[in-house]
Amino acid sequence: MKSFIPYDSDSDFSIYNIPFGVAIFEDDTIGCVSRVGETIIDLAVLYENGYFDKFELKENIFNAFTLNEFIALGKQHTVPIREHIQQLLLEGSELEKDKETQSEAFHPYEKVDMQLPVHVPNYTDFYSSIEHATNVGKMFRDPNNALLPNWRHIPVGYHGRASSIVISGTPIHRPIGQQKPKDSDAPVFGPSQRMDFELEVAFITNSYTTLGERIPVDEAEDHIFGLVLFNDWSARDIQSWEYVPLGPFLGKNFGSSISPWVVTLEALERFRTQGPKQEPEVFPYLKYSGNKNFDIHLQAFIQPENDNENLICTSNFKFMYWNMAQQLAHHTVNGCNIEVGDMYASGTISGKSEDSFGSMLELTWSGTKPLKLKSGKTRKFIEDNDTVIMRGWAEKDGIRVGFGEVSGKILPSKE
Amino acid sequence: MKSFIPYDSDSDFSIYNIPFGVAIFEDDTIGCVSRVGETIIDLAVLYENGYFDKFELKENIFNAFTLNEFIALGKQHTVPIREHIQQLLLEGSELEKDKETQSEAFHPYEKVDMQLPVHVPNYTDFYSSIEHATNVGKMFRDPNNALLPNWRHIPVGYHGRASSIVISGTPIHRPIGQQKPKDSDAPVFGPSQRMDFELEVAFITNSYTTLGERIPVDEAEDHIFGLVLFNDWSARDIQSWEYVPLGPFLGKNFGSSISPWVVTLEALERFRTQGPKQEPEVFPYLKYSGNKNFDIHLQAFIQPENDNENLICTSNFKFMYWNMAQQLAHHTVNGCNIEVGDMYASGTISGKSEDSFGSMLELTWSGTKPLKLKSGKTRKFIEDNDTVIMRGWAEKDGIRVGFGEVSGKILPSKE
Repeated sequence: MKSFIPYDSDSDFSIYNIPFGVAIFEDDTIGCVSRVGETIIDLAVLYENGYFDKFELKENIFNAFTLNEFIALGKQHTVPIREHIQQLLLEGSELEKDKETQSEAFHPYEKVDMQLPVHVPNYTDFYSSIEHATNVGKMFRDPNNALLPNWRHIPVGYHGRASSIVISGTPIHRPIGQQKPKDSDAPVFGPSQRMDFELEVAFITNSYTTLGERIPVDEAEDHIFGLVLFNDWSARDIQSWEYVPLGPFLGKNFGSSISPWVVTLEALERFRTQGPKQEPEVFPYLKYSGNKNFDIHLQAFIQPENDNENLICTSNFKFMYWNMAQQLAHHTVNGCNIEVGDMYASGTISGKSEDSFGSMLELTWSGTKPLKLKSGKTRKFIEDNDTVIMRGWAEKDGIRVGFGEVSGKILPSKE
Repeated sequence: MKSFIPYDSDSDFSIYNIPFGVAIFEDDTIGCVSRVGETIIDLAVLYENGYFDKFELKENIFNAFTLNEFIALGKQHTVPIREHIQQLLLEGSELEKDKETQSEAFHPYEKVDMQLPVHVPNYTDFYSSIEHATNVGKMFRDPNNALLPNWRHIPVGYHGRASSIVISGTPIHRPIGQQKPKDSDAPVFGPSQRMDFELEVAFITNSYTTLGERIPVDEAEDHIFGLVLFNDWSARDIQSWEYVPLGPFLGKNFGSSISPWVVTLEALERFRTQGPKQEPEVFPYLKYSGNKNFDIHLQAFIQPENDNENLICTSNFKFMYWNMAQQLAHHTVNGCNIEVGDMYASGTISGKSEDSFGSMLELTWSGTKPLKLKSGKTRKFIEDNDTVIMRGWAEKDGIRVGFGEVSGKILPSKE
């Protein structure tokens, strides 16, 4: 396949991708968009100019503040619509000749301002990397018995805060709160001293189920529209003082950053790969067939103020012990209902090697082994005015499909 | 104050209440309503007939599926509007003479179908009763050291699932899931054997704050529109196997039931009372002035199929160790943003006496002391086709303001 829109061979946004997002244009209007290379495609304009007529949509659903209405059409509609967009962008297409529509619908990437692609009614964070769970267990519990007894039976997860999910580029103020330093008898109050990121991938659901309904593991992917990169910012000191017995709360809910482009499950189809063997055998409702892991390269970088990017982590989404289908089957086995736009994050994605750990907590082993940056600076945790950048892409047989990046800068605490 | 609408002296819906809800009427239309005695008042009709003209509202915000738009006006508008409704319903009012509007706007309670009063963007559950936290600690941790070290410093809370909050009367299927019985080496899978309720009260917020903004404890109540009764259904066996280390998940998110009437903070003003002394001293951001607890009588009942109601718990909202203002100040101290319609539940409200415990877990001491019902039946936990009913009201100097009830029936597991 060759698009008439030119792009570099290492672009995340090849003609094989066709991701979805929401952009504010130069004239301050907003709408749903796709992207090839550095070109943003205003889908509402394509609709107005008749390019989606054959789908008999009731209205211009791309003329919207979020993708929710489009996603809610379900795969029987969104899959052919995405394929149609891909066809429109190929060499020799009708749209290639239609310079007038192009001039209206195409925008250079630098000229648009990407927004949160979906309204997120519910957000769940899993804990599905066995390497991450093991690292945390070694540090905080028993090095010889690091995994908790439930971990290999349950795709452990918890509810997070939907309201504080923000788009890439949104700065985050360092949270203040209670912490209990090891050498103190009583808690102290102030800015977090152990500010961290978590390298994650999140999926977005495309349907409403009713309370009491279960999604079988082999149908779960039908409910997944696509994926984004997810930075689950974490204040480790606030978290460790508060989290027993009811889980993370203020240590997490001050902000979570996502990448602007939702890459569809269909675009990732060719990058499927086998997941790790699950031992002991899982319960029948978690047994799946086929390849449900995805080979997606993941990187995390720290960029101090006025300094270079430093690659600090190289991981891969294929390391996940529990896959997305299992996560969704588990989430609904008790009858919990899902909604369109829900976000389900993977949990920190760590690999086996030390440079694949997906958080500062693990990379610096709880601050005991500071990272050396190129400039000579060191980092135990994230400092004020550091920017954390995460990138993710899949590549196979010369075909590349990527997410772009999610970045966020930590500002000093307010007041 | 005397309303021209008659009601019994023990009605929760006296002229002093003027709560807000959402109803479906006999003609299948929906709208925002209030209530006096057994009379439902269609506020959209009052608007259409000019009764809210002096407020210069942009549109008929009562002609809506939820109260969110009304609540979002903030107290500077909702307080005078509620007082105006109260005035309209007094003897001698213009509305008393306007029989035509009355015939259009007034409905007998039996003829309407109450709906979820708000769309809930985010739901948090606290754990703010010291008696409840102590009981749980005694049962599951150390009887001599029942409270965790953080409990007296932090209004502990966690995020719950907003999608599965349902209106009173909605039946709930017994959840299935993984459990690990004490006598088993491995987990088992099936319907929960330890189905429970939690007697709670939840508050609803009326504003949007921006990420990074903190709500000071003494301003927190300005952000609280009103309260509902809240039954946080809990599957104890699922919960206890899954909840370490990230908190409750499938043990809770299969359903939470709320009462249909949002009772405003203003209606509860005269029932303020002093909260328990907090020792050790709390951090400055949690220090409050004035009375921030509320004397609200709470009851829970079990009604087996075709049987009578059995009063099993008599508690009071005033027992709360942490008050709502402290909860909201804590929730936002790290910069977490709140939204209109958010629901913040208290956690199980237990008192000191054994008959004031707000869950079966505590009332039967983890199933070791079954409750005897009037019929001679016993209950360790909630059985299939049992209905759990909660009621709540405040009463002082002959003035009564109540919530009505939240009820829910547990149906057998699906399949």
